[in-house]
Amino acid sequence: MSATIPQQFTGYAAMDEAHGKKYEVEPWSYTPQKWNEDLIDIQISVSGVCGSCLHTMSNVIGTVVRAGSNTKHAVGDRVGVGAQAGSCLECDYCKQGLEQHCRKMQGTYQGIWEDGSVAQGGYADFTRVKGQLAVKIPENLENEPTAPLMCAGVTVYSPLKRFQAGPGKKVGIVGIGGLGHLALQIAKAMGAETYALSHSSSKIDDAEKLGVKRENFIVAKDAEATVKQWSNTFDIILITAPSENLPLDSLYFPLMRNMGAVILCALPETKLPPFFAHALVGKSLTLAGSLIGGTSELAELFDLAAKHDIKAWVETRPMSQATQTLQDMDAGKARYRYVLSNTKKD
Amino acid sequence: MSATIPQQFTGYAAMDEAHGKKYEVEPWSYTPQKWNEDLIDIQISVSGVCGSCLHTMSNVIGTVVRAGSNTKHAVGDRVGVGAQAGSCLECDYCKQGLEQHCRKMQGTYQGIWEDGSVAQGGYADFTRVKGQLAVKIPENLENEPTAPLMCAGVTVYSPLKRFQAGPGKKVGIVGIGGLGHLALQIAKAMGAETYALSHSSSKIDDAEKLGVKRENFIVAKDAEATVKQWSNTFDIILITAPSENLPLDSLYFPLMRNMGAVILCALPETKLPPFFAHALVGKSLTLAGSLIGGTSELAELFDLAAKHDIKAWVETRPMSQATQTLQDMDAGKARYRYVLSNTKKD
Repeated sequence: MSATIPQQFTGYAAMDEAHGKKYEVEPWSYTPQKWNEDLIDIQISVSGVCGSCLHTMSNVIGTVVRAGSNTKHAVGDRVGVGAQAGSCLECDYCKQGLEQHCRKMQGTYQGIWEDGSVAQGGYADFTRVKGQLAVKIPENLENEPTAPLMCAGVTVYSPLKRFQAGPGKKVGIVGIGGLGHLALQIAKAMGAETYALSHSSSKIDDAEKLGVKRENFIVAKDAEATVKQWSNTFDIILITAPSENLPLDSLYFPLMRNMGAVILCALPETKLPPFFAHALVGKSLTLAGSLIGGTSELAELFDLAAKHDIKAWVETRPMSQATQTLQDMDAGKARYRYVLSNTKKD
Repeated sequence: MSATIPQQFTGYAAMDEAHGKKYEVEPWSYTPQKWNEDLIDIQISVSGVCGSCLHTMSNVIGTVVRAGSNTKHAVGDRVGVGAQAGSCLECDYCKQGLEQHCRKMQGTYQGIWEDGSVAQGGYADFTRVKGQLAVKIPENLENEPTAPLMCAGVTVYSPLKRFQAGPGKKVGIVGIGGLGHLALQIAKAMGAETYALSHSSSKIDDAEKLGVKRENFIVAKDAEATVKQWSNTFDIILITAPSENLPLDSLYFPLMRNMGAVILCALPETKLPPFFAHALVGKSLTLAGSLIGGTSELAELFDLAAKHDIKAWVETRPMSQATQTLQDMDAGKARYRYVLSNTKKD
């Protein structure tokens, strides 16, 4: 059964900056972690390119070519693996399928396995991961527009679910990019009325294609004018753009309905501007952060995507163009995600 | 039926500071708002003295002496009224019994009624309020230890419920005072394991009487040492002490389990110290504010109190000692709440 699986896996690895340009990756081969019956080998079809350095080189879709007897997978299954390729499988978080919170979580990229070897990420021909961290992909979802759901998608789905986006709720998405363009589709699929908040009107047509009514596209450049028109409107505002000096006090808090949640999925490089406790207490507001998602959330998101035709907008490139693609990603050229493919050739 | 109800109600009113000492109140009489069938008249038995100036002179327990036909009350009912004595009765919040969030909410003290008159609070013989804002009090609850539940109690119950304090959860209460001593009892009654966080060990015996195991009493003066011992412990930390420079980043965030909630029920006079978004994102934490509570929460809290013998620790004084009591409250002398009574005489 494992006859076609090579002893060495071949992929692309990031060089440290002393040895190469930023985001330069080079082909290399490595020996995967030692086999055990909790593991599966996946022949990788596509790999999504994430926005955050942290998760870069994770999230893959491929076909199971070897399935450990302790896993629920079978050879031939099409599965996806997100930012986590391993976890303890025993803690409260793992039992809920929220492995992103497991303290022994092993990243798909750069995680350390039990045998001491280092996880090499998804820019490769094969990967060997814990079976529990792989989620079966519904038949009607295509590889390419689905790959980014496993990182960007689940990162926004997780808090949208936790803070109960749904019918009767108004959800504002700040930033139309890799996370934002998925958040708009996902929140709408969950039944919420969606709004896009952007610094300019340049993406209004994109927003409309993503399900936002034109009158719900808000150019929020002038905080005071925006608050005047939209105060006490939103149940959820989800911030996907890592702007410095986030206008929490001057813009986002006033836009919230009482008991609303402002959710941070972005990581500005500076501290959040300080605000009075009263800004949260006066309307019983929540300021929340959210980190990726786990397998239970991924499975729910796949179901939602299959039902509501949620698709990342992607440009697919051959895996051999990994370096150029990472550099283009860094330069903000993605509209809105790149996917690297082992089947697409130069 | 209304024969015994005077045309004028008599109570105590705060003088502005130009005319009296801080917290000085003087007897006065006033004409209540114009009667309509949404209203009830309550003969006040006791009135709790709240910690926050905002809510001072609200929350009363008394007997219904006149009941409008549009209310669910009957003459003779024993009811409680918290910080809100009126609201629109029609918005989403009112329909859920969360009238504290109604935009037309009328405070029990200083709220403006439809007829333009001003609500005069609970330090009086009678009060006339909207029937919907009065909650029936279970038979086995005594007036005095129950009065503070309507403000301090529901203020902590509301977020403990919203953030799902219950079996299997660890709840840390910061500050053992008016709010904190109720929060400890309430969280325990909800099934959570409770911890008290305090700056010194002076209240350890009180904490134990409030249901905290001695080993769960945490002197959190030294943030670093506290984090070393208690990191990743709490599902909820509820902050009831309005300290400046709240150690969010150095203490409370590190103490939280992933997906935990740090809840602010206090209002420090300075802005919260700034922190990186990553402090919330990395563990999917929530920083939330919470404002009082509504009638649905009050009814739930009364049920919980009746079942679990939740009692505010109070010192009861005659209503005529209002000025002295407010001054003692301001001086931090309450252990942990004062109640003013119309039946207790000097």
